[in-house]
Amino acid sequence: MDYSAINSTNIKNLSISELSGYSEYLRERIIAVTTKNGGHLASNLGAVELTVALHYVMNMPHDKVVWDVGHQTYAHKFISGRGEAMESLRTDGGASGFPSVRESEYDPFVTGHSGTSLSMAMGLSRARDMLGGTENIVAVIGDGAFTSGEIYEALNDLGDRPTRLVIILNDNKMSISRNVGAMSKYFNKLRVNKKFIDIKTDIKRDIAGLPFVGRPLLRLATSAKNKFKSSVMGNKFFERFGLKYYGPYDGHDIGDMVSALSLAKESNGPAIIHLLTKKGKGMAEAELHPDAYHGISPQGGDKHLSMSKVAGDTLCELAKDQNVAVITAAMTDGLCFGDFAKRYPSKFFDVAIAEQHAVSLSAGLARMGVKPFFGVYSTFLQRGFDQVLHDVCLNELPVTFLIDRAGAVGADGVTHQGIFDLSYLSLIPNLTIASPKDGRELAALIKFAAKLDKPMAIRYAKSYRQEISVCDEIHLGEWEVLRDEGSAVTVLAVGKTNEIAKEIKGANIINARFIKPLDSQLLDLLSGTVITLEDNVLHGGFGEAVKNYLSGKNKVVCIGHKNEFCDTRSTQKMFEQSGLTVANVQKIVDTELLLLENTKNI
Amino acid sequence: MDYSAINSTNIKNLSISELSGYSEYLRERIIAVTTKNGGHLASNLGAVELTVALHYVMNMPHDKVVWDVGHQTYAHKFISGRGEAMESLRTDGGASGFPSVRESEYDPFVTGHSGTSLSMAMGLSRARDMLGGTENIVAVIGDGAFTSGEIYEALNDLGDRPTRLVIILNDNKMSISRNVGAMSKYFNKLRVNKKFIDIKTDIKRDIAGLPFVGRPLLRLATSAKNKFKSSVMGNKFFERFGLKYYGPYDGHDIGDMVSALSLAKESNGPAIIHLLTKKGKGMAEAELHPDAYHGISPQGGDKHLSMSKVAGDTLCELAKDQNVAVITAAMTDGLCFGDFAKRYPSKFFDVAIAEQHAVSLSAGLARMGVKPFFGVYSTFLQRGFDQVLHDVCLNELPVTFLIDRAGAVGADGVTHQGIFDLSYLSLIPNLTIASPKDGRELAALIKFAAKLDKPMAIRYAKSYRQEISVCDEIHLGEWEVLRDEGSAVTVLAVGKTNEIAKEIKGANIINARFIKPLDSQLLDLLSGTVITLEDNVLHGGFGEAVKNYLSGKNKVVCIGHKNEFCDTRSTQKMFEQSGLTVANVQKIVDTELLLLENTKNI
Repeated sequence: MDYSAINSTNIKNLSISELSGYSEYLRERIIAVTTKNGGHLASNLGAVELTVALHYVMNMPHDKVVWDVGHQTYAHKFISGRGEAMESLRTDGGASGFPSVRESEYDPFVTGHSGTSLSMAMGLSRARDMLGGTENIVAVIGDGAFTSGEIYEALNDLGDRPTRLVIILNDNKMSISRNVGAMSKYFNKLRVNKKFIDIKTDIKRDIAGLPFVGRPLLRLATSAKNKFKSSVMGNKFFERFGLKYYGPYDGHDIGDMVSALSLAKESNGPAIIHLLTKKGKGMAEAELHPDAYHGISPQGGDKHLSMSKVAGDTLCELAKDQNVAVITAAMTDGLCFGDFAKRYPSKFFDVAIAEQHAVSLSAGLARMGVKPFFGVYSTFLQRGFDQVLHDVCLNELPVTFLIDRAGAVGADGVTHQGIFDLSYLSLIPNLTIASPKDGRELAALIKFAAKLDKPMAIRYAKSYRQEISVCDEIHLGEWEVLRDEGSAVTVLAVGKTNEIAKEIKGANIINARFIKPLDSQLLDLLSGTVITLEDNVLHGGFGEAVKNYLSGKNKVVCIGHKNEFCDTRSTQKMFEQSGLTVANVQKIVDTELLLLENTKNI
Repeated sequence: MDYSAINSTNIKNLSISELSGYSEYLRERIIAVTTKNGGHLASNLGAVELTVALHYVMNMPHDKVVWDVGHQTYAHKFISGRGEAMESLRTDGGASGFPSVRESEYDPFVTGHSGTSLSMAMGLSRARDMLGGTENIVAVIGDGAFTSGEIYEALNDLGDRPTRLVIILNDNKMSISRNVGAMSKYFNKLRVNKKFIDIKTDIKRDIAGLPFVGRPLLRLATSAKNKFKSSVMGNKFFERFGLKYYGPYDGHDIGDMVSALSLAKESNGPAIIHLLTKKGKGMAEAELHPDAYHGISPQGGDKHLSMSKVAGDTLCELAKDQNVAVITAAMTDGLCFGDFAKRYPSKFFDVAIAEQHAVSLSAGLARMGVKPFFGVYSTFLQRGFDQVLHDVCLNELPVTFLIDRAGAVGADGVTHQGIFDLSYLSLIPNLTIASPKDGRELAALIKFAAKLDKPMAIRYAKSYRQEISVCDEIHLGEWEVLRDEGSAVTVLAVGKTNEIAKEIKGANIINARFIKPLDSQLLDLLSGTVITLEDNVLHGGFGEAVKNYLSGKNKVVCIGHKNEFCDTRSTQKMFEQSGLTVANVQKIVDTELLLLENTKNI
């Protein structure tokens, strides 16, 4: 059978066993492309059969499927006519690693952040109800995303005013790292029931190995028996929100899923199908180490030094003699906090995908005199914006935000760019903002923050190329003069852009270590032209702050990213597009030197 | 008995009946001051006995109480030594209407936004555990705040890693308006149980009147019987999160509450006490109409015209022939959406206090071709920042944000200032931002937005003084020249600041209707000095955008609020502090005219 010709329409002609064969075909293609280009491997392998069943039962794109986060859509992309684009996955011109409206009408939204799918799906459903449409609406949500508060806001509203839709709980027992939280424990309980144990599956082994946590669980298993006749398990938690609960089913058994989906589709209200899937399914290594295979780097990937590792190591060092607490929202590995977690478990808090809670929790820790460091990706801190402003900065609490993956992020693309943080943080009163150019400076800034009795944000890219200078002492709001040539042109570089600045000739080079406060003393001394470099959008960023401060005293040329969403999938290319290159900056420096020379001569 | 001498220490010497007497005394004082100065009346009347019991049982300020939102802390302020400051409640120099660290060590945090208390309390508790402290930590949360996603993020984390604290669920069956959502229905169920029906209370009547929604409820009531022996009601939902559940109790029976609090205090893990309280308790009018008495205006309050009413009326007009949807997060009354809700119930969605969900839901509605208007207070939209950026603007969906209470908000003070929105919204790509100067323009902008196929934000103050101009037609990004005097000085005024601009003599006056995009055509034509006026912080706001655009071509003087948190409790005074007065702007205009005249003469 030529599986490469299967699409969302002709898939409906396949038999169940052919659907299984097609799943294996998709699995191979996913492994091939992900190994080559990098990407989310384990979660995609786990979602293959689920995706095949969805395309088989639903009539897309008339019916709409909203994928929470969206990093599990590789199979969906193959089925919905993007096989070729998938070959250059995550590169410019190729398929995005996330749903993309621009790519296909099969994707109702561009997504990339967690916990929004149910709200969006409810919007689709309610609009359908208003317009008298017939679309089936599906939200596919991982158990990890169930820790996002927004899901509960949506469930609460859904319970109040039901609308016909299907939620698929894709339960692989982990978000990115180990899944934490009460809901996770609860899902564990649901997993053990008669219906599921009856069906043949390789997950059965896992369940047999689950610790039976006393009577309540046993009771659940027993009392549940009768209800499975209808294949609907009465489930208190979801029923509270008016959801008809189906499951749990083996998320790798296409026949079961087709039945469940067909049943749920006929429901005239909201329904939830609980699927048990296995992250990394079908690839032995990935099944064994799904953490390691959550996101994999392309062959011959990033050879640079890791900023994240420096952060993790420095926190370990601090914890020896200070009451620090380290907080993460399900990003232990990505942030290189694993070592800290092991060495200082009582000082480490993985709160699951819950950035809002993480920020307010940090505020509480700080109020009692513990020094909290909340490590978070730049793009995800957006989720805690109100809490940063209200709970931390309005309260002037000494929380430190360690903002990783700041600036251009490369292959993850438009949904993960960390290019807004300098703008949305700079507007918040009482917040000190710094950015290190290299690992040594990051370590020094973290140690500086540990002693600072104020809210502080340290934002840094994932990696750096080399140590640029020795960082002895950090003083609040003081910049580092890397080179004073007595030139009429001065380059002020933020963070990673110092890698460019250091190559520039004929200009004074200053590492603008603090974005807020600005080094006003130094700025007051500057004459001539000032060129600012930042890995952030220009609007509300560092350059504009400098320009506003200098207020006409100096000519200021701001170089940074355009004020738009940018889907460029290579950091280097994005830097090039924004003029953040040695060649471009050198050209501007030379032009300015010439202009100033000419003015002097006149 | 001299109740005015009671404080958090000597309250412990009172008998239960004296505590009741003291509660009546507090109630009278709250009614007196709120009637005089305005404020949150109903919720404070409902929390009196609860507050008295807390001070009786807990040892504050060593023990820490975190009040969710914090508008229910009037009694707490009287008890904690702020009786005098309470006499000038909500005025400058008087007590804030919300918890304030600056006022008292009895307030661990400044709060004002919903759903953050449990996270903060968990921070306090975990820090206590780390430091080996003995503090009791309490979070007081209204049933309305239980619709905030952050509470669930916190509960999920608490279930994963318990810490000793007490949650008080202050269940008055409503947030600000009618409490909506599945959780609300669930609390209704909990309210009906043997323990509670046994105790004498005027709420008993209410319960008798509750509709019994079929068998499950009856079963609950019956099966629950036995468990009350221990006064701990086995409660699945909360138990799931590892909480010991006590209740429900009559929140106006001090004896019961003292017992429950003492019991919960001894618990070595997290506990929740469910109290049934009555909003407006003890004031017949307020009990009958708690909505109307949620927030009351001071005697002789705002005489200005209501922007909110214009918005509500215009939406009703639009709904006649367009598929609009109106969304609110528990602010139906404040936004004047009541009429719309009544006339178009199928197009109206009150999603409870859930701004994140409201934004993503709007994105979904828009994707299907319905035109959503999400009405929200400026300060609360901060909670949906990531969703505005990611779900709406990255997806270029034509959602309109109707941002009420923008700019200085007066008596609510520092936690509610709407002075950041122009900054945090301007940085978001694809978003059009406008602000009307009067009611006519707001109506015209809403109609304009209804036809615009892009995301748009319309931000406006609560009230306006008069109609300033007739608004015929709105063109995207086009400003309104209110007066062209051919002057060398031009005033660009945003929204409410047009009330100042129109009084200015000798300058050209332009209503900068759009903050984004700027009217670049008009800006290109301007010579001389430009003065910008905005009711927003200067950082990242309108003036800086103009300054950046003009980039030295013109001298630009930006007038707006300082880049700090501002607790000024009068809009007028805050405008004065920021130089947003006719006198100040006129002075600057005159000075600039003189300067330009002198330059010309040279």
